[in-house]
Amino acid sequence: MTLLYDAPIEDMRFLQAHVTGLSRLRSLPQFEGITADLAHAILEEAARFANEVIAPLNPASDRQPASLQADQVQTSPGYREAYQKFIKGGWNGLDCSPETGGQGLPQSLSMNVNEMWHSASLSFALCPMLTSGAIHAVQGHASADLQARYLKRLVSGEWTGTMNLTEPQAGSDLAAITTRAVPEDDHYRLFGTKIFITYGDHDLTDNIVHLVLARLPDAPAGIKGISLFLVPKQIETTEGQTVRNDVVCTALEHKVGIHGSPTAVMTFGDNEGAIGYLVGQANQGLFYMFTMMNHARLQVGLQGVAVSQRAFQLAREYAHTRRQGSTLLKTGGQGMIEDHPDVRRLLLTMESTVQAMRALALEAATELDLSTQADAQAAQRAQVRADLLIPVVKGWCTEQAVEITSMAMQVHGGMGYIEETGIGQLWRDARITPIYEGTTAIQANDFVSRKLLRDQGQAMQGLLADMLTVCKALADSQQSMLQTLGLQLQQATDTLQSCLDFILSRQEADRSAVYFTSVPLLMLTGFVAGGWMLGRCALAAMAESTICETTQAQHLKLASAYGQLVLMPALGLSHSILHGHEVLTHL
Amino acid sequence: MTLLYDAPIEDMRFLQAHVTGLSRLRSLPQFEGITADLAHAILEEAARFANEVIAPLNPASDRQPASLQADQVQTSPGYREAYQKFIKGGWNGLDCSPETGGQGLPQSLSMNVNEMWHSASLSFALCPMLTSGAIHAVQGHASADLQARYLKRLVSGEWTGTMNLTEPQAGSDLAAITTRAVPEDDHYRLFGTKIFITYGDHDLTDNIVHLVLARLPDAPAGIKGISLFLVPKQIETTEGQTVRNDVVCTALEHKVGIHGSPTAVMTFGDNEGAIGYLVGQANQGLFYMFTMMNHARLQVGLQGVAVSQRAFQLAREYAHTRRQGSTLLKTGGQGMIEDHPDVRRLLLTMESTVQAMRALALEAATELDLSTQADAQAAQRAQVRADLLIPVVKGWCTEQAVEITSMAMQVHGGMGYIEETGIGQLWRDARITPIYEGTTAIQANDFVSRKLLRDQGQAMQGLLADMLTVCKALADSQQSMLQTLGLQLQQATDTLQSCLDFILSRQEADRSAVYFTSVPLLMLTGFVAGGWMLGRCALAAMAESTICETTQAQHLKLASAYGQLVLMPALGLSHSILHGHEVLTHL
Repeated sequence: MTLLYDAPIEDMRFLQAHVTGLSRLRSLPQFEGITADLAHAILEEAARFANEVIAPLNPASDRQPASLQADQVQTSPGYREAYQKFIKGGWNGLDCSPETGGQGLPQSLSMNVNEMWHSASLSFALCPMLTSGAIHAVQGHASADLQARYLKRLVSGEWTGTMNLTEPQAGSDLAAITTRAVPEDDHYRLFGTKIFITYGDHDLTDNIVHLVLARLPDAPAGIKGISLFLVPKQIETTEGQTVRNDVVCTALEHKVGIHGSPTAVMTFGDNEGAIGYLVGQANQGLFYMFTMMNHARLQVGLQGVAVSQRAFQLAREYAHTRRQGSTLLKTGGQGMIEDHPDVRRLLLTMESTVQAMRALALEAATELDLSTQADAQAAQRAQVRADLLIPVVKGWCTEQAVEITSMAMQVHGGMGYIEETGIGQLWRDARITPIYEGTTAIQANDFVSRKLLRDQGQAMQGLLADMLTVCKALADSQQSMLQTLGLQLQQATDTLQSCLDFILSRQEADRSAVYFTSVPLLMLTGFVAGGWMLGRCALAAMAESTICETTQAQHLKLASAYGQLVLMPALGLSHSILHGHEVLTHL
Repeated sequence: MTLLYDAPIEDMRFLQAHVTGLSRLRSLPQFEGITADLAHAILEEAARFANEVIAPLNPASDRQPASLQADQVQTSPGYREAYQKFIKGGWNGLDCSPETGGQGLPQSLSMNVNEMWHSASLSFALCPMLTSGAIHAVQGHASADLQARYLKRLVSGEWTGTMNLTEPQAGSDLAAITTRAVPEDDHYRLFGTKIFITYGDHDLTDNIVHLVLARLPDAPAGIKGISLFLVPKQIETTEGQTVRNDVVCTALEHKVGIHGSPTAVMTFGDNEGAIGYLVGQANQGLFYMFTMMNHARLQVGLQGVAVSQRAFQLAREYAHTRRQGSTLLKTGGQGMIEDHPDVRRLLLTMESTVQAMRALALEAATELDLSTQADAQAAQRAQVRADLLIPVVKGWCTEQAVEITSMAMQVHGGMGYIEETGIGQLWRDARITPIYEGTTAIQANDFVSRKLLRDQGQAMQGLLADMLTVCKALADSQQSMLQTLGLQLQQATDTLQSCLDFILSRQEADRSAVYFTSVPLLMLTGFVAGGWMLGRCALAAMAESTICETTQAQHLKLASAYGQLVLMPALGLSHSILHGHEVLTHL
């Protein structure tokens, strides 16, 4: 079965031109050269590459997972060739600075490109995604010497990067890490076992740069005693030779999905110890990880968008071409299954939610771009907004991805349960996204503790104020559908406000109550923020005289569907948020 | 990893003794001999068999699916031996009449037993479940001669049964069936291809009895021209020999889950034609299928209960034994992950919902039992109630099963995504339940058209009246948690009433609007009916002086959790039901 991927370039262009992304970055000199035409050309090229080179790998990698051979991990069929094309095409490090060999694109534009890679194959795209995380760590915190030795080859993709955090006894709780780093000359020897290491080993490149959390001998207990080390798979000796470092992949996990992405158990120092180099200061490892986390979590949220988009496309295509039964929504009564009311409901729910998710993820990335501007106050405001939105993007978009891929399967009926359709793989692949890079509960705790309670709701009040501005613009419009959405968004914003007030009124005095419903609160925030973005999209579509009526009607339709089918039902979550904790009194 | 199954016998006994099942069947003479002690003994034996014989097969069958060999399908390791033990133990045909060799148990009691089989292995339990469907068809509609030849060996399980409905072009729409049946002597020759045939072929028994929908040469077009045929895999000649019939499994599907259950493509009449016998009257096939459907759909709903129960158990066990991070719900702050508020929220949501699902499924089965009583009017009332509840049980319990198995995975964190944990298999297995035996949309359409519109909401008004009685009893209780649940259930019942009124006010005049939101309506009905059952459970627990305080507290806790975390948030669905159709005006 052919599973073509049709990149949603039009929606991306619309967002960039009229809603967020480039349209909000015009005052930033570093992006002066990124014209709409250039952006469009990049998107078109990326769409072609995603469709022609990456998407065809995806079904085979599900059936032929990466496998552990004698001396290294062998990736799925075609991965090696595709990766070489990927880096030769200059697709790695798109948003890295030009002095490191990157293209210097805004993160918000590279988000659109990355969405295409993830839609084409989550498994394949994880490799450059992890490298990107390593680049952030090295560029942000490593010494000039380490940067000189590793940065350019990471940016070019000649080498890839990994993140080594989790240990068998230390999952969400990194304080429990026990991997040791013993000083020796100008480096350290590392001993320990890391699990769940994405692309911990592979045959795509000659070298792999592992970033590893470990403890120095004299380190304090808990999270304040964790340092970050750079541990290459191959060590370059002073004589210019390369020798194998004492770090090996000792097993691969059998996972529910993303079979093409090797998830490795990595053993450091089974012999003489793995040579590693301290990144930045000792005992600052967790702090460095946190600075990278915004980026990584935003990318995983984007994976949720991407896999949902792909699943929606497959469902739409199937519903459009599969004839079954007499249909209510077609004159004559013999249409395709898209003309059955419930199939239409599912498609509208999926399509409108995916668009809301994409817009919200792009908005968060734009705030990250804006946080690099010269005006310190404006930069700080943008950073605060990005920090607020990112757990929402990660938590909400990934939970929705599980729902949306499941809806796509349902549209397929019995065929959806047959692996050949490809929808099962998307559903299984999507299921990792609310788990890794911090589970939804971890996102929700971060959201409540660091983003709501720490500043006493100030950042959130700012977001709510922006939402109310959109409510007013919708209410003031002459379009009845926009007015309806305006009323719905007003109700949604009021509901969110009352939930925020509740959290602030309880906070430390009753932490159990607050954290008992942090996930429903994160989800509610996602649903309301999604409505805010679709409201902005619809307003922009109607305000621009250059936009054709078909596009305008499409935006109105999706905004209306989202309001009626997604946003309003979700407000029921507020009951759990405001009253759920009462259950705790009976335990 | 050991995946012991711990059958929820205590909950089953409680339901049977105090809420529904046996406690409502005391006036029926045919069940006079089924004492509480006998029922308990049966449940204990079944639990042992499920745990010792069936559950151990489940993980292996996921990795080693049934496979198509040269001349027949080979089942997963251990299936053949387990099946022989199953029928030798007399577990087949528990609710069949004694004159056919069955045990004559109430369906509501055999439901409890069947839940155990499904919890232990959905894949394995599908085989007797399909046989049970065939028994209903043969006993209900076949001639005395066919019954004499096939019924006892189906009831004993010496032979198994299948249902052959779907064809490549005829899925949900059976009107499109094209398999032909040509008369010849005292039998027919069948020609055609059927797909998605569960246990269409296997090596568990010597013979398989296929029940097949096909068209006679002179049959009218559409659903009125479909007849039902019995097509054995092996034909017994008049000389007492057995010869292979012209029906073969030509392929097995590669499915997302239930790998141990062979899903066959069956080819009838590739050579001389498959010999088949007409069941009942010509052109009545679909009607006969409908009479069996209540049974089959209830069983699939029960699968949803069963797989959810198993997943909940695994999650509870993991949360109870996995230490991670400092916990808020435990004094001292170093508990297990069950002491993290969000994990606790997930566990309470799962546990309370599963209990509501089990109680509701049992209530529907009890109504089926009551529909066999001598008092024709009472029997008719019970049948109407069963007809109303069954699409709710099928649709709601199976959709919840997908959610609950997913929650169970989330409780496991990263480990949940690793196949060895076993939770992935449950999640993948559960995903078929909202698809087969009629998708959720098919259930919702049946619910709206045949159960709500056909009698102008009369049956539903009866259910709502029963719910209001429970609301009043809860409000009148002296227990504050019950009073709270009473208020919530009152609000839920009012909401459901307004949705019913909406559907009745639109009905035929605006069928698109009605069917656009039939699935949300079915789900809302499920959530409210679940609350009704948990309200009855809690009232019964508090009313009985014989029930210990721990059990009472458990019922109060679950009723409270369900009200706060499940029922009230679900009321948001009413918005989609009442307003969702407005989207249609913009398409």
